[in-house]
Amino acid sequence: MICSSSLHVSGSGTRNSPSPPSSEASDEPVRKIKASPQLNRWSRARTIRSGRKLDRSTSTESLLTKSGSLPVRSQPEIESLLLPMSPPNNKRDSRSSSSDDEKEGNGGGIPIFILSDGTGWTAEHAVNAALGQFDYCLIDGVCPVNTHLFSGIDDVDKLMEIIKQAAKERAMVVYTLAEPSMAQSAKQACQHWGVASNDILGPLTEAIAGHLGVSPSGLSRWAPERQKTPLSEEYFRRIEAVEFTIKQDDGALPRNLDMADIVLTGVSRTGKTPLSIYLAQKGYKVANVPIVMNVDLPKTLFEVNPEKVFALTINPVVLQSIRRARAKTLGLNGELKSNYCDMAYVKEELEYARKIFAQNPVWPVIEVTAKAIEETAVIVLRLYHDRKNRCSMPRISKRY
Amino acid sequence: MICSSSLHVSGSGTRNSPSPPSSEASDEPVRKIKASPQLNRWSRARTIRSGRKLDRSTSTESLLTKSGSLPVRSQPEIESLLLPMSPPNNKRDSRSSSSDDEKEGNGGGIPIFILSDGTGWTAEHAVNAALGQFDYCLIDGVCPVNTHLFSGIDDVDKLMEIIKQAAKERAMVVYTLAEPSMAQSAKQACQHWGVASNDILGPLTEAIAGHLGVSPSGLSRWAPERQKTPLSEEYFRRIEAVEFTIKQDDGALPRNLDMADIVLTGVSRTGKTPLSIYLAQKGYKVANVPIVMNVDLPKTLFEVNPEKVFALTINPVVLQSIRRARAKTLGLNGELKSNYCDMAYVKEELEYARKIFAQNPVWPVIEVTAKAIEETAVIVLRLYHDRKNRCSMPRISKRY
Repeated sequence: MICSSSLHVSGSGTRNSPSPPSSEASDEPVRKIKASPQLNRWSRARTIRSGRKLDRSTSTESLLTKSGSLPVRSQPEIESLLLPMSPPNNKRDSRSSSSDDEKEGNGGGIPIFILSDGTGWTAEHAVNAALGQFDYCLIDGVCPVNTHLFSGIDDVDKLMEIIKQAAKERAMVVYTLAEPSMAQSAKQACQHWGVASNDILGPLTEAIAGHLGVSPSGLSRWAPERQKTPLSEEYFRRIEAVEFTIKQDDGALPRNLDMADIVLTGVSRTGKTPLSIYLAQKGYKVANVPIVMNVDLPKTLFEVNPEKVFALTINPVVLQSIRRARAKTLGLNGELKSNYCDMAYVKEELEYARKIFAQNPVWPVIEVTAKAIEETAVIVLRLYHDRKNRCSMPRISKRY
Repeated sequence: MICSSSLHVSGSGTRNSPSPPSSEASDEPVRKIKASPQLNRWSRARTIRSGRKLDRSTSTESLLTKSGSLPVRSQPEIESLLLPMSPPNNKRDSRSSSSDDEKEGNGGGIPIFILSDGTGWTAEHAVNAALGQFDYCLIDGVCPVNTHLFSGIDDVDKLMEIIKQAAKERAMVVYTLAEPSMAQSAKQACQHWGVASNDILGPLTEAIAGHLGVSPSGLSRWAPERQKTPLSEEYFRRIEAVEFTIKQDDGALPRNLDMADIVLTGVSRTGKTPLSIYLAQKGYKVANVPIVMNVDLPKTLFEVNPEKVFALTINPVVLQSIRRARAKTLGLNGELKSNYCDMAYVKEELEYARKIFAQNPVWPVIEVTAKAIEETAVIVLRLYHDRKNRCSMPRISKRY
């Protein structure tokens, strides 16, 4: 169980079945969740299930603003509001069914709470990248980590509830909160409860504001004012790129190669498909053309602008092992499997591809062995932009 | 031209055709670019094209370490090395072909340089999110911004060259540099040249190190030691999820619905495909089933665990406008177009879907109007994890 459901359950039967609106629920403060009516109902039910109302007298509920506004409080005021809370880990919630909530809640991993007033994907991405610095002890399980993403945190009530929970679970808190008073409250609450914390976007936003000479809006993604901002043209371009790319996958519709921004080619299992999709998510229309020994390539591949074609190659030993795993997944029969995965065949097919690449010297040949898709993607895009813009200093430029 | 190619071109003809290795190139210090031999050749050619060698006497080349090691220098030492450079914007490069390099290089936008020793996607993601706080002036073009991503910055030489360029272009610098001495050099150089800067991952990595009680490796993604780390199981799971999801798109292979983690359903243009792909990138196997009026749905949709089915709905006026744009893109003929985009038909089809949803009350109905894919994704995943883990406090948990 990667959660701590036992902490707040107020009674039996309330957790697994959505509670109908009751008189207890009707005086629930108005919450600002942006979702369908169904979701709002879910959210209300969840609030009831959480038993939060029962908590009021001894918790931080006094920080709540029922009007939904987010007042900035002075440090002493915040502190005086925080004081009634029991210090983390010294006194257990008497309703708790387990005395080991923190460990249970995180399956033995060290917890990191990710809080956001938007989706939280930015903070999750940053945490994921930062954890790359601890690969050496994550991989062998020396310090397993559990991240917990809490998105759409749009009022101080929820914010305090989660930070309080972080203190209980001995988690650190990483947050992105656009509203300055929310960010300030998070910082103060974490300090007060001794929770390590990090504001991912605050310092960057401030630096950009200084650079642009304008102020940030301070509006979270879910704020009604932000909702009015129409989805941008660039957004729809990205959606279109994904749809285009899916349709062209695996050599389908070779007649459309000229409509692609980027064409990838290489033998089976060089990662053309996931790379295509990754690039498509960034707004590039991608087509990929598989190279199979003794199968003619579509002539359009040689007719399109060669500057947009990228060839992928890979170490034969690695390719063989990937193909073996693939054949197993697909449940290929012995005969096809031996052909597809046979080392002599693998080498011959790579050599066949190499000759095609040599005949098209404008195509850069990218070695993908041991590279993650994200890494190959940056190489492709650097070359793509470099060729397009002829920069002395290769860069991937984007207009906002 | 979203670059500043004019600054470093040393002579005619060297920019558009790769230069052959020359005696000038052969005493080039060994560079640590990780790429195929082809790319290394490209990189060398680019170095020649950039005319960097000619720069040495008056630039920061003296900061270079030919051994490839990255010594930590004292502040006065760094400053003394930086002093020979001409102050930004006071004295122009005499070889520059334009006196308006900064503006030309950014198409009139305010430049932000993104530097990384890895791919740079984390920093780009953060900058993109932070720029959301300036929507109000970006959208109407009051303060257009140009970001420039420089990835794989793995030596002080390149780092200084780019920061120097940032000073020339009056750009701010946002960076993720794992090697502490590189991050320190970036900070000092930015301070020295009066360039606003922000370290995206440094403070977060430090906070996580404190929380885990272990030290960060300080290795960039491109460091040979990091390269030895095998791609994780989770990485291959993500690739598999993307491949699965593409194959199931648009109701293909309904017999595989039971193998999906998440099944999306809704009428055409509710964003099922891009949402599926977005979720797949996060490691979830997704299938999507389109609802078309008077077309039977696959019976497997009603046989799978209803807790993994998510229904999408949308405002009819918005749907009509999206369908109109779609019909235009597809070049649909008048008859089909009028049916597909006709308001009466759109409403009727949404009502048809609504009835199906009502018959399957376990499926949550998610309203996608005006929501970006990322926002719908977080709603789906929150419900998905909530149902799976029955948490009192809805969270999306992940193990590292």
